[in-house]
Amino acid sequence: MITCDFEKRGDSGLSEYLYSSIKKQIIDGTLPADKKLPSKRALAEHLGVSVITVQNAYWQLISEGYIYSFERKGFFVTDISCEPSAVHEAVTDAGREAEFRQNGSTAVIPNDKIVHEYFADFRSSATSFEKFPFSLWSRVMRSVLQQSDERLLKSPPSAGVPELRESIASYLRSFRAMDVSPEQIVIGAGTESIYNMIVQLLGRDKLYAVENPGYRKIFSVLELNGASCVPVSIDSQGIMPEQLEASGASIAHVSPLHHFPTGIVIPVRRRRELLSWALHADGRYIIEDDYDSEFRFTGKPLQTLQSADKDGRVIYVNTFSKTLSPSYRISYMVLPLQLAAAFRKKLEFCACPVSVFEQYALAEFMRRGYYEKHIIRMKNYYRTLRNNLISALEASPIADMAQIHEKDAGLHFLLNVNFSASGREIQNRLQSQDINIPLLADFFYQPASDNAFFSGADNTFVLNYSGIKKERISEAVRRIVSAFSFPGGT
Amino acid sequence: MITCDFEKRGDSGLSEYLYSSIKKQIIDGTLPADKKLPSKRALAEHLGVSVITVQNAYWQLISEGYIYSFERKGFFVTDISCEPSAVHEAVTDAGREAEFRQNGSTAVIPNDKIVHEYFADFRSSATSFEKFPFSLWSRVMRSVLQQSDERLLKSPPSAGVPELRESIASYLRSFRAMDVSPEQIVIGAGTESIYNMIVQLLGRDKLYAVENPGYRKIFSVLELNGASCVPVSIDSQGIMPEQLEASGASIAHVSPLHHFPTGIVIPVRRRRELLSWALHADGRYIIEDDYDSEFRFTGKPLQTLQSADKDGRVIYVNTFSKTLSPSYRISYMVLPLQLAAAFRKKLEFCACPVSVFEQYALAEFMRRGYYEKHIIRMKNYYRTLRNNLISALEASPIADMAQIHEKDAGLHFLLNVNFSASGREIQNRLQSQDINIPLLADFFYQPASDNAFFSGADNTFVLNYSGIKKERISEAVRRIVSAFSFPGGT
Repeated sequence: MITCDFEKRGDSGLSEYLYSSIKKQIIDGTLPADKKLPSKRALAEHLGVSVITVQNAYWQLISEGYIYSFERKGFFVTDISCEPSAVHEAVTDAGREAEFRQNGSTAVIPNDKIVHEYFADFRSSATSFEKFPFSLWSRVMRSVLQQSDERLLKSPPSAGVPELRESIASYLRSFRAMDVSPEQIVIGAGTESIYNMIVQLLGRDKLYAVENPGYRKIFSVLELNGASCVPVSIDSQGIMPEQLEASGASIAHVSPLHHFPTGIVIPVRRRRELLSWALHADGRYIIEDDYDSEFRFTGKPLQTLQSADKDGRVIYVNTFSKTLSPSYRISYMVLPLQLAAAFRKKLEFCACPVSVFEQYALAEFMRRGYYEKHIIRMKNYYRTLRNNLISALEASPIADMAQIHEKDAGLHFLLNVNFSASGREIQNRLQSQDINIPLLADFFYQPASDNAFFSGADNTFVLNYSGIKKERISEAVRRIVSAFSFPGGT
Repeated sequence: MITCDFEKRGDSGLSEYLYSSIKKQIIDGTLPADKKLPSKRALAEHLGVSVITVQNAYWQLISEGYIYSFERKGFFVTDISCEPSAVHEAVTDAGREAEFRQNGSTAVIPNDKIVHEYFADFRSSATSFEKFPFSLWSRVMRSVLQQSDERLLKSPPSAGVPELRESIASYLRSFRAMDVSPEQIVIGAGTESIYNMIVQLLGRDKLYAVENPGYRKIFSVLELNGASCVPVSIDSQGIMPEQLEASGASIAHVSPLHHFPTGIVIPVRRRRELLSWALHADGRYIIEDDYDSEFRFTGKPLQTLQSADKDGRVIYVNTFSKTLSPSYRISYMVLPLQLAAAFRKKLEFCACPVSVFEQYALAEFMRRGYYEKHIIRMKNYYRTLRNNLISALEASPIADMAQIHEKDAGLHFLLNVNFSASGREIQNRLQSQDINIPLLADFFYQPASDNAFFSGADNTFVLNYSGIKKERISEAVRRIVSAFSFPGGT
């Protein structure tokens, strides 16, 4: 049984002292790896303290990774000598996928797990740290706080402060050629918050279609909000209208200008078919996710579905996570006029979830032109990063068996490999080299083989490169290459 | 028909030009008050422009208050010569109540309405502007942004950044004598976001009981998230356990230490009854809303229900809206351990909705002791404000017929008046004097007369004084007095 002499605890609280005693015994080996600890109740009785005291001590030990628990089985000592790859495996695949794009696995610090930072994480959507305009942001924030405006201390209107909505409308006019009024714009605190509002607005009795393969977090967020979802297959032109019609969905979530993760751009004819699908029955809407349109490297910006929609059937969604940082928690949607009116009617009593200080600061950041300049700078930075990575891959020994797709747009590209070992095997080898790369197959809802258009999904890697440090590119590529020349490979 | 010569529009967009033409005709009286405007389609055809062009122009006119619309009836010219009191009436009572406490009517700037700022608004929960620590906050924010820490650019873990959770746990330990671990704390973006997470965690198949009378926004937010709610009557000791049991609810929302708006503190015996109600069936939980416990002016801080709960049945909820500002959008909850584990399992894939910058800044603000000092300062400020207001009322001619209840706690008190005119009539007279005061009756779900314990609800005013400017107190009291000496009164 664990010993703990509470008389020696000095100023420490009971829980705290118990926690450090157990920790010490784990570190010095008195409590060996995988040893079962007494139940909370048993230990509490043994030591003459309350169950809560033991609970808090165990909790702290779990949160720092010294012990782990199995539901209904109890608490066990962690093998604290374990290797990093063992930690990777503790993070479930499902969890990882769900976090992908918005959070990225390195970006999330789960409370009760030690999160490993990969040498290179191509699943993460982190933005570049060194390029973030900290001093400009700081300056703008200071000038907002100096304004001494009473509005700074008022709860924000449900759709967000008017100044930010105006800045966004004017940005969309200039850079996306979208003619929208600030009254159509609603500010939210990240993807979760925007989809939460969409479900509150459109209703949870509707069926929501999501792209298959696609960004699976949307599915999870919609489900969490009580909406039913159905994955609808895409072909080489995007979501398939007949299958969408057959699904019975009345809301369709699409990313027409840069599908995630395939990179497909929906061609004009298919876009028209989608808009006419929306008109075919009352209450149908298309959610257009324009998540990384700012990073199109060649050609003109593409017209949004929202601009082509003359009937108020498209809800346009975008975010500052990609252009500024996922830590901002600011995203927005553009509602058709009739939905903007419905939003005010139904959701006006709620306050916008984004801090008023940050809303004014971002509005000012945009108004001064800093945002525009930042995007240009980031676009150049990412273009170089992408070129370096692609050049390194193309100059490597795997160039002969690999094809790179979707080079020209957005913050990820595809690497299709024709190799004797399976994609999954390569992925595991990369993991052991501290490189995290998802497979296209990971973004399917059913086995990828069911979809005739993506037969290579099991051998296609998705490289989300925005969070990769540029000085690590050559080493990352070396490790990728070595995963293909593993004994038993080629 | 409206005329608009688009050839003269110069650089303006079509919508913009149409908008200013109509505005001009309203201002110069060519389009008189309450004149019906042509339908969007008709005007579009007449002018040879698209319906969207007209829609945008109409929208802009609505948002600036030049025209108004009636559903299915069309668009009409606003009487722009109207008095402020007419504007008050345009804001529906239901909307006002729902906004109350969190937003306050002056705090919300609805997109399509002109919001009137009252001379004194006792419905608003705005905080004091002059006392806000802008320079300290600015300093802390700057020091956070200078840290150059990569964590600043990462999406926050679902429960919030560990540093803020630690600061809150340590604050709760020192000031609320609550022994909670940071792992039990979840950061949310305001009331809406916390209750949204609670429903996602506990499920929308549960029945949620709310106090009647009570803070009606909770009801609205729970309903918006798809949960069913039932109002349960309170007596002089708070929510009634037999009625709670009979309601069939499994989740009960209560504010045991300062009921809103009656100010009732639930006595120990009733607290025990509530805790034993929670233990009486699986899956029962109590949500303890401790919304303004920081502003108890006399006696020791009261023990929270959370501290008395040894069985993990209480979810504790609090906010920084009252102590700092409703513009912050930071609130939090303390989950029982088993729910904290469930939260991580179910909601870990979501990012916390609060900006990482603000989370670190608030953690630092608390760590440096600024938060504690700010609360002490605000407590003194509010005590003086409250004393001045109560003294002015007690020295006034209405002192003979008025009784003040719940003087010692929180940011509101009750004024019960025994007078010939009805409370509603006095309320209307106050409105015409630019003073907004809700009646206790406004916080009931059924007619107040159904509740035997609050027979005076129709003659009891709720004075939420935190947003009242101190230099306006004597004039506000003068106007209150004059509402009672109106011709036909006394």
